[in-house]
Amino acid sequence: MAIHVTGSHMHDKVINDKIFKAGAAAKVACERFGTENVVDASIGVLLDDNEKLVSLSTVEKVFRNLPMSEITNYAPIAGLPDYLENVLDVVFRDCRPDAYAKALATAGGTGAIHHAVWNYTDIGDSILTSDWYWGPYQIVAEAFLRKLETFTMFDENRRFNTEAFRVKVEELQAKQTNTFIILNTPAHNPMGYSLDDDEWDGVIEVIKNAAKNKEKNIILLVDIAYIAYCGDQHDCRTFMKKFSGLPENVMVIIAYSMSKGYTLYGQRAGAIVGISSSRAAIEEFDSVNNYLCRATWSNINRSAMDILNIIHDDKGLTEQIETERDGYYQMLRRRSDVFLAEAKAINMPVMPYVSGFFMSVPAKDPEFACEKLFEDNVFTVPMMGGLRIAICGVPFQKLKIMAERMVKVVHLTR
Amino acid sequence: MAIHVTGSHMHDKVINDKIFKAGAAAKVACERFGTENVVDASIGVLLDDNEKLVSLSTVEKVFRNLPMSEITNYAPIAGLPDYLENVLDVVFRDCRPDAYAKALATAGGTGAIHHAVWNYTDIGDSILTSDWYWGPYQIVAEAFLRKLETFTMFDENRRFNTEAFRVKVEELQAKQTNTFIILNTPAHNPMGYSLDDDEWDGVIEVIKNAAKNKEKNIILLVDIAYIAYCGDQHDCRTFMKKFSGLPENVMVIIAYSMSKGYTLYGQRAGAIVGISSSRAAIEEFDSVNNYLCRATWSNINRSAMDILNIIHDDKGLTEQIETERDGYYQMLRRRSDVFLAEAKAINMPVMPYVSGFFMSVPAKDPEFACEKLFEDNVFTVPMMGGLRIAICGVPFQKLKIMAERMVKVVHLTR
Repeated sequence: MAIHVTGSHMHDKVINDKIFKAGAAAKVACERFGTENVVDASIGVLLDDNEKLVSLSTVEKVFRNLPMSEITNYAPIAGLPDYLENVLDVVFRDCRPDAYAKALATAGGTGAIHHAVWNYTDIGDSILTSDWYWGPYQIVAEAFLRKLETFTMFDENRRFNTEAFRVKVEELQAKQTNTFIILNTPAHNPMGYSLDDDEWDGVIEVIKNAAKNKEKNIILLVDIAYIAYCGDQHDCRTFMKKFSGLPENVMVIIAYSMSKGYTLYGQRAGAIVGISSSRAAIEEFDSVNNYLCRATWSNINRSAMDILNIIHDDKGLTEQIETERDGYYQMLRRRSDVFLAEAKAINMPVMPYVSGFFMSVPAKDPEFACEKLFEDNVFTVPMMGGLRIAICGVPFQKLKIMAERMVKVVHLTR
Repeated sequence: MAIHVTGSHMHDKVINDKIFKAGAAAKVACERFGTENVVDASIGVLLDDNEKLVSLSTVEKVFRNLPMSEITNYAPIAGLPDYLENVLDVVFRDCRPDAYAKALATAGGTGAIHHAVWNYTDIGDSILTSDWYWGPYQIVAEAFLRKLETFTMFDENRRFNTEAFRVKVEELQAKQTNTFIILNTPAHNPMGYSLDDDEWDGVIEVIKNAAKNKEKNIILLVDIAYIAYCGDQHDCRTFMKKFSGLPENVMVIIAYSMSKGYTLYGQRAGAIVGISSSRAAIEEFDSVNNYLCRATWSNINRSAMDILNIIHDDKGLTEQIETERDGYYQMLRRRSDVFLAEAKAINMPVMPYVSGFFMSVPAKDPEFACEKLFEDNVFTVPMMGGLRIAICGVPFQKLKIMAERMVKVVHLTR
């Protein structure tokens, strides 16, 4: 009987961590066969073409000059006040919506999702996301007694499936007070897709229609974890202007992370940003998130926030980090171009890719294809509909061979 | 209607942050009257007698030499494997209980409490702690739909009130499957009390008796946030040996924090440590906490874990940090001695103090006394039964005057 000392809702909660499993298998293979003979496409961090971890030099310079007191001292519960202002600039740039907006510091993007789910859904609710999704959405939902449901992300033209989205939004709205939606865009993980302005117009129309029912709320969480490597930083933000003047029973929440844009994955800093036409709703957002910060982690890494502040306030440093990021965007572009070209040459479908760290290849039996690829020293992560390849971590020279090995397994079934 | 866009359980959740309020008022007073005329006893960090934030030089040296990749890169979800081993050494030293034990990295001690409460209680449960308690215990409980109940901490001899503890444990056990208890010792926040071995024997006996009911579980969370400044580091850990051979339906959880012992408050690193006679219960502990890490913050500050690892693995550095900590323990000892002597001289009662960052002075109307003291430029934090003074942040030379000003208000009522 002592096996379950936990609360009843936690019995048998175990992660099946496919990313970790692939990464660990790749490590073993590297030791056995040599790194040059292994393609590890499981790692979600930027590696250069020598497979060395990228640390932006602008960030390192600022970091190395921080006074020890900024490393040592607590930050306020919600985050350093300057950070909370600056992060709005960094998130919106010149596409700030005409609405009330407020940020609080969180432990990366995951922390923002944790807060949004706990604060903006009820126990037993279903959360809606696309059928290709980042696995931890499900873990956050289920850990906190919610469920995850999905809509079919693409129509037959490989465009965002507004109709499928609408049907699921209406279905959930009929059952629960809050309809909570997660969209991962731009540079979707695991596909690299970005909704364009027309597709966003469709999303907004569905939400506005649903919001006509004033007894119900719609919460749209946009996970922009990969926005820093999307090319033009204005163009990839134009959708944010569409959050202007939405009905008061719509809350838009942006999950922002410093992990990728500052290559500070391990420092665990990000923000939850609330956007609403209602001042009262944003005051409530501030208050319930502040409360949950205190109840979850007390406060967030102060020095990471300093780094964003210092770079934000210095034009030279800002230009320098933009240039660095653009260089890595180009590196990702070269990698995706060669992979797409090779896939086309060997007739292997690839899910629609726009930008970002990941691409996906559909497979009939992803788990099986993934295991077969392990035998060929290629390490990818199985998703619902295919294999995720982390081009952020695969050097240019290994992409062609990866495609060749993948095409042999994607049609297999067990 | 749009005011409550949140889930129904979050309506009207607002922190009344008395620590922040006192700190902010002190800042204003310092600007107006000069720091030399203000006593800020609200800050929970070590300041030296020049009111300068203490950063341990051993930690700074290690920190400044970390390679950038250790700052940048993700840690595994549960924490760096070496950290998870080393933190057991740092927590237990030579007092490791004869039991299964496992650690996972958390965002400071608060993160450990968050995980323990969510994983080891059911919604609606009451959590038990002493009537003098750190306010955030209540916030964690209520944010996650639990309640906080208290027992009277002291008997008429100013000793731990085992009988009051027993009555509340039995009362809660009658109502719920898991009886979850938080004890903050050694160096209790807000009092600086530490249970001695006899008092611990009483606690263990109550728990063992309750555990005879095999349909029920007892979870004892010990918050050791301030253990690094308790003087002899063996003597303040002897209670840990008592966690050997407990019944399998008892889980002991230690909430460990690097904030104070490494003066790394702002880096947000700590650990949740599970201790049990049941291997299966510890495997479950590992699994459900791993799951909740992924659902809450994904992973913890890697470089902070490196610092603990590097110091742990180097005898010279370990000796050096021990010497530094002992110096600050002596500083706290000098401060508490002078405050206690002065309080005695002016006939002002002080709650039983053994060691640590905080002392407490009973007051009839703590909120009112606190406000009156603001007028006298003394900034303390009101608790249920009195005023908390953070001697960690008050220089030696200001303690006498603080006592003199306090004695004038502690008997007042509004």
